[in-house]
Amino acid sequence: MSSETGNADRTNNQGRRKFLETTALAGVATAGFGLLTACAPKEPGGKGGAGSATGAAAASAGKAVEVTPGKLDDYYLLSSGGHSGEMRIYGVPSGRTIKRIPVFNIDPMVGWGITNESKAIIGTKPSGELRYWTGDTHHVHGSYEDGTYDGKYFWVNDKLHSRVARIRGDTFECDRITDIPNVQGQHGLFPDKRDPVKRDINRTTRVFAGAEFALPLPNDGRDMDSPEKYGCLFTCLDAETMQVRWQCQVDGNMDLVATSYDGKYAASNQYNVEGGAHYEDMMSAEHDACVFFDVARIEAAIAAGRTFTIGDSKVPVVDGRKAANADPATALTCYVPIPKNPHGVNASPDGKYFVCSGKLSPTCSVIDLSQVEKWFAGQLGNPREAVIAEPNLGLGPLHTGFDGRGNAYTTLFLDSKIVKWNIDAAIAQFKGDNKAKVVLDSVDVHYQPGHGYTSMGETKNPDGKYFNSGNKFSKDRFLPVGPLHVETEQLIDISGDKMVLLHDHTAYPEPHDAIIVRADVIKTRQVYNIDEFPNATKSDKEAGIERNGNRVHIRMTSQAPAFSMREFTVRKGDIVTLTLTNLDKVEDLTHGFGIPHYNINFIVNPQETKSVTFVADKPGVYWCYCTHFCHALHLEMRSRMIVTG
Amino acid sequence: MSSETGNADRTNNQGRRKFLETTALAGVATAGFGLLTACAPKEPGGKGGAGSATGAAAASAGKAVEVTPGKLDDYYLLSSGGHSGEMRIYGVPSGRTIKRIPVFNIDPMVGWGITNESKAIIGTKPSGELRYWTGDTHHVHGSYEDGTYDGKYFWVNDKLHSRVARIRGDTFECDRITDIPNVQGQHGLFPDKRDPVKRDINRTTRVFAGAEFALPLPNDGRDMDSPEKYGCLFTCLDAETMQVRWQCQVDGNMDLVATSYDGKYAASNQYNVEGGAHYEDMMSAEHDACVFFDVARIEAAIAAGRTFTIGDSKVPVVDGRKAANADPATALTCYVPIPKNPHGVNASPDGKYFVCSGKLSPTCSVIDLSQVEKWFAGQLGNPREAVIAEPNLGLGPLHTGFDGRGNAYTTLFLDSKIVKWNIDAAIAQFKGDNKAKVVLDSVDVHYQPGHGYTSMGETKNPDGKYFNSGNKFSKDRFLPVGPLHVETEQLIDISGDKMVLLHDHTAYPEPHDAIIVRADVIKTRQVYNIDEFPNATKSDKEAGIERNGNRVHIRMTSQAPAFSMREFTVRKGDIVTLTLTNLDKVEDLTHGFGIPHYNINFIVNPQETKSVTFVADKPGVYWCYCTHFCHALHLEMRSRMIVTG
Repeated sequence: MSSETGNADRTNNQGRRKFLETTALAGVATAGFGLLTACAPKEPGGKGGAGSATGAAAASAGKAVEVTPGKLDDYYLLSSGGHSGEMRIYGVPSGRTIKRIPVFNIDPMVGWGITNESKAIIGTKPSGELRYWTGDTHHVHGSYEDGTYDGKYFWVNDKLHSRVARIRGDTFECDRITDIPNVQGQHGLFPDKRDPVKRDINRTTRVFAGAEFALPLPNDGRDMDSPEKYGCLFTCLDAETMQVRWQCQVDGNMDLVATSYDGKYAASNQYNVEGGAHYEDMMSAEHDACVFFDVARIEAAIAAGRTFTIGDSKVPVVDGRKAANADPATALTCYVPIPKNPHGVNASPDGKYFVCSGKLSPTCSVIDLSQVEKWFAGQLGNPREAVIAEPNLGLGPLHTGFDGRGNAYTTLFLDSKIVKWNIDAAIAQFKGDNKAKVVLDSVDVHYQPGHGYTSMGETKNPDGKYFNSGNKFSKDRFLPVGPLHVETEQLIDISGDKMVLLHDHTAYPEPHDAIIVRADVIKTRQVYNIDEFPNATKSDKEAGIERNGNRVHIRMTSQAPAFSMREFTVRKGDIVTLTLTNLDKVEDLTHGFGIPHYNINFIVNPQETKSVTFVADKPGVYWCYCTHFCHALHLEMRSRMIVTG
Repeated sequence: MSSETGNADRTNNQGRRKFLETTALAGVATAGFGLLTACAPKEPGGKGGAGSATGAAAASAGKAVEVTPGKLDDYYLLSSGGHSGEMRIYGVPSGRTIKRIPVFNIDPMVGWGITNESKAIIGTKPSGELRYWTGDTHHVHGSYEDGTYDGKYFWVNDKLHSRVARIRGDTFECDRITDIPNVQGQHGLFPDKRDPVKRDINRTTRVFAGAEFALPLPNDGRDMDSPEKYGCLFTCLDAETMQVRWQCQVDGNMDLVATSYDGKYAASNQYNVEGGAHYEDMMSAEHDACVFFDVARIEAAIAAGRTFTIGDSKVPVVDGRKAANADPATALTCYVPIPKNPHGVNASPDGKYFVCSGKLSPTCSVIDLSQVEKWFAGQLGNPREAVIAEPNLGLGPLHTGFDGRGNAYTTLFLDSKIVKWNIDAAIAQFKGDNKAKVVLDSVDVHYQPGHGYTSMGETKNPDGKYFNSGNKFSKDRFLPVGPLHVETEQLIDISGDKMVLLHDHTAYPEPHDAIIVRADVIKTRQVYNIDEFPNATKSDKEAGIERNGNRVHIRMTSQAPAFSMREFTVRKGDIVTLTLTNLDKVEDLTHGFGIPHYNINFIVNPQETKSVTFVADKPGVYWCYCTHFCHALHLEMRSRMIVTG
C-alpha cells in the first residue's frame, strides 16, 4: 500500500552517505577531532541503506505495528516539542499524535495565551500583553511513587527563557509555569524519586533543573566582558508549589539531569568546564564532568544559613563550585570527570548507576553511585574512581535507555546508530576482561539520533519492549515538503536479542526528550467539574451583562446548539470581559468562541469556564461563532456582538 | 501489537450509542425537526460497532496500510486546520503529519509571526504588532491546469477574520494573505479551473470565496438593528496577484464553493435565505439554495460600470441579489432551490453536475450544469428544474467525493456513516425508475463526519482508491488525554464494491476540508536560492554591524557549527534588526536562532535569509543559540549579545 513512485531518487542511499560525509563528519573534521575520526567504529554508518532494508523486512516478517481501527495504543509517549514551545502526546506503537499541549507558545485552537486564565499562567507585562510566546521545550519527565510513574504530574522545561512548566496528568493541561532566576539556557530537568530528607516519603517532592549558559550574576550589565566571573546555577523547585526552593552555583555548563532512586542525589552532565565563550574554547579539555549534588547536605547548608542571594532574587543560593567543595566531608557537590563534552546522563533502573555519554568522545561512562557515596563519605580518593566502566561505543554517543535485563541502548549521533550493550560486561571489560562481550547489537537509524528512550525505561521496572529513537534529520524518509523537513521518530523492538526497526513516524520540529508510559498508568478525566472554576456561570439564569463604568462583564453559557445570549451590545471603548461556561456535560462536546476582527478564539470543554478581555474599539456587528464543531446546527450557533459608536 | 488493556470500557459501543442519542439527535429533536426524525434511514447508525469490527477484520484480511520504514506515502493530503489557524500535510495512506504550515497563527518553531518577513505577509498594526494571531482555516484547494492539479499553488481561507492565504507548492510556505473587505465568516473557497473569459487559458486564474455572515454594508455602526438590510458578498480574487477583483452581493448565507470544469460557473450553497439572526429563524424555510455565478457576465457588468463600492473599499461590487436578477437574459446569478440548510457543494469529475447536500434534509441534490446554462439562456422556467436527482441518503448529509466510476460518497453527520451511491441511478430514480439501485453501500465512521473527499477526487481524473472521512468527534478511538479529544480521520478503501475502513489517524482540532493529491504532482525544492532574498548576507565578509543613530543592523550568517559573529554589542534602547543568512547548502541543515528573554526564535533553512527587529531594552549578556539541531557541536553554536547599560 505504499510505493516510491516518482520518488526513486529520494530514497536512495547515495543521499544519506553524501549527507553524512559533507555535514556531520566534515564538521567534526573541521573542528579538528583527531580523536573522533581515529575512533571510527569498524562498521561505519551508511552501508547501503541497511536500515531501510531491515525495516521493510521486519514489516514483511509480520512485525507490523499498525494499530487497526478501534484498537488503542499500548503506551503514551510524552514528548517535548523543542522550539515549537509545546509538549506532545503520541501513541505507541502507532506513532499517532494524540495531543499537542500548548505550554510556552500561543495556540489559538484552545485559546492558550489568549484567555485570561492562560495568560495568568504564562505571565504578562504590566500592559497585559504576554511576556513571551516563544519557548524551547527539551525534557519531559513525570512524577514518581515507589520508583515508578504515578501519573500525577509531568514537567517540561523552556531552555529559551529558562522556565519550568507543570502539566497535570488528569487533564494534560499546563497548570503552572515558574521562571528560574539568574540563569539562561535552562536545559536539563528531572524530578526526584524519593524525598532526600524525609526518607519515608517515597514519591516526587522536588524538581531539579540545570542551566547551560554561564552568566554574570546578576545579569544586570556587570562583568559582561569577564566570562571568568560568569556562573551557572542548578535549581531545585518544589513539586507541589512550583516555587524555587534553592539554587546551587557550579563550575561548567550543565545539560541533562538525572536523579537517583534513593532520592539522595541529583546529577548533571557538564561541558565547557573550561568556561569558554567560543566553541573551540569549550572543547579544549580532555575531561568535563558529571556533577553530583548531595541534596540533603545542600538543604542542611541552607538551614544553617550558608547561603547568598543574587540580584533581586530571594532564592537562597549555595556555593557548589569545585574549589569550595574540595573537602568531601562537607562537600555539597562532587565532580566526576567524564571525557570530552559529555551529553546525557541516565539512571539505570536497578538504582546502581548513572550512565553519562561522551558526545565528543566515543565512550559511555558508567558511574557507580555507591562510589559517589563513598567519595562524599571521604572514602574515595578521586571522584574519577566512581567511573567503573567506559565502553567505546561509536561516534557521538548521547543518550541511553535501559531494558531491565541489564542492557543499555545508546544513541550515536554521528554514526546514526543505536548500540545495545551490556552493563555488567562493560564493567568486566573495564576491570580487564578482554573477552567481555560489551556491544551486543547495533541498528541504523535515519538520521542523527538525539534522544533515545525505552518503554517505562526511566522507572525501576522497564518492560524491555520498545526503544524510540528521536532523530534530528529525516531528509529522505518522508514525502518532500519543501526545504523544511519534519523530524523522524523510529520505533525499535528491543524484546529479542536483535533490535528490529519497526516504524518511522514524523515529529514536528523539534522533538528532544520523551518518556514512554504504559497506558494504564494514566488516569484522565473526560469532563471537568464546573465547581473547579470560580468564575463559572452555572445556569442560564446567572448569565447576563454587568456594567461598571466602561468595564463590561458578559457572562455567557453554551449548550449545543446555542449560546445563552443571542446578541449583546457594548459601547465603543468599553473594556469587555467575556466569560463563557460550557454547560454541556457530554464527553467531547466542546464549543469554540471566535470574535471576528477582535483576534479572539478559545474553546470551552464540557463543564469548563474561560474568559477573555478586550477593548471594543470598532463599532459594528460582529458575529461571534462556535469555532469547534459541536452539533448539526453548529454553523448556526452564533451570538451577535453589537458595538455602538 | 496493540491492545485494549485497561481500556475495555473506553471502546464499547454503549458509549457511542449514548453519545448519539443524547447529543446530536437530541439536539435535532429539541429544535423540532419532524422532518429529520421521520426520515431516519432503515439502517440507522450505532449498530453495535460494526465499524470497528470491520476495520479490524480488514486489517487482519491483509488490508493493512502500514507504510514500512524507508517507504514513502503515495499521496499528499493537504488539510485545513480549523481554529489552529494552520494548514497541514499528511501522508496517505500512513496518516503521518509531514508538515504543519503556519498561516494565520504564530509559530515559534519557524518564527512565523516573529520575523519581519512573515509579519509583512500577515499584516501589522501601526505599532508594528501583528494584527491577528488567530484564524480558522476551513478549505484547502489547489491550482489547476487542464482539469487537474498543477501543484503550483494552494489556497486556504480564514473564516475568523475573513482572509485568503496562498501557499506555494514548491516550498509549502505561505507567501500571501489577502483581507476580504466587508465580509464576515468567509467560509468557502475554490479556484476556477479554466478562465471564464479568455477561453483558451485552461488553468486557474481566479479564486472564489463565499461569505457566511450577513453584515451591515459597510459595517461601521449603521443598520446594526436592521438585519433585513444586512448583506453577504461573494468575492473573486486574482490567483496570481492575490488582489480582490470584484465582489457580488447575494441573498442568504454562503458556505462552500464549487467551480465548473469549463470555467463558466462558480457556485455556493446557501443556508438562511430567511435572513434570520437566530438559529430558529435560520431554518424556517423548506428550501434554501445553491447560488450560481455567471462569471463572464459579472465581469462584463463590471466592465460596463454597473457596479458600486462599499465604505472605504475600492473593490467593484455587483448586485447578485435575487430580486435584481429575475430576468435570466441579464442575470448574474441563478438561485437553485435546495432543501433545508444545505451544506456542501461538489463538482462531479465528468464536469456535468454539482452535488449539494441537504444537511437538515436527508437528501443530496444533483444539479445539472447544462440546465443551469439553459436557465441563464432563458430556456428553463424554474431554476429548480436544474435539480435532476435528489436521493434520500440518511441523516445529516454534508460533503461528497467521487471515484471517477460514476459513484458518489457522501458523509452523513448524524448517522456517522459514509454512503456510496450511484449518480446515474439517482437520476433514473428521480425520473421515476423505482427499481434504480441508488445506495450501493455504507460504512460506519467514528464519529460525526464533516468533510469527506476522495484521492484526486476534485480533478477530472479521480483514481477511485481512497476516501478520507474527517470526523468531528473521536471520543473513544484513541487513548484518552483529558477533556479535549483529538479528532479522527478515517481512511476508507473505495477500490472495490464494498467500502473497507482501513485506518484511523488523528488530527489536531479542527480539520475541515482537504484534498488528496498524488505524490508525483508535487515538485518541491529542498534548498532555497540565496538570490531570492534581497537582504541576504552572501558571505561572512559582508557580515557585520551597521549603526545609524539608535538603529542597529546586525548582519549575520550561519554555517554549522557557528554563527559568523561570536558576539556583538548593542546599547540599551537600540532598535536592533538582526538579519541571518544560512550559508549551509546541505539539504535539511536548518539552523535556529533564539534570543533568551527577548521572545525571539526563528529558523533559517539552507540558503534562506530572515530578519527580526527588537528593542534592546535589558542590559546584560544574552546567549543567542542555535535552537534547531544541526551538528555534533549544535549545543556549542552560540553568539553572545552584550547589551550595555
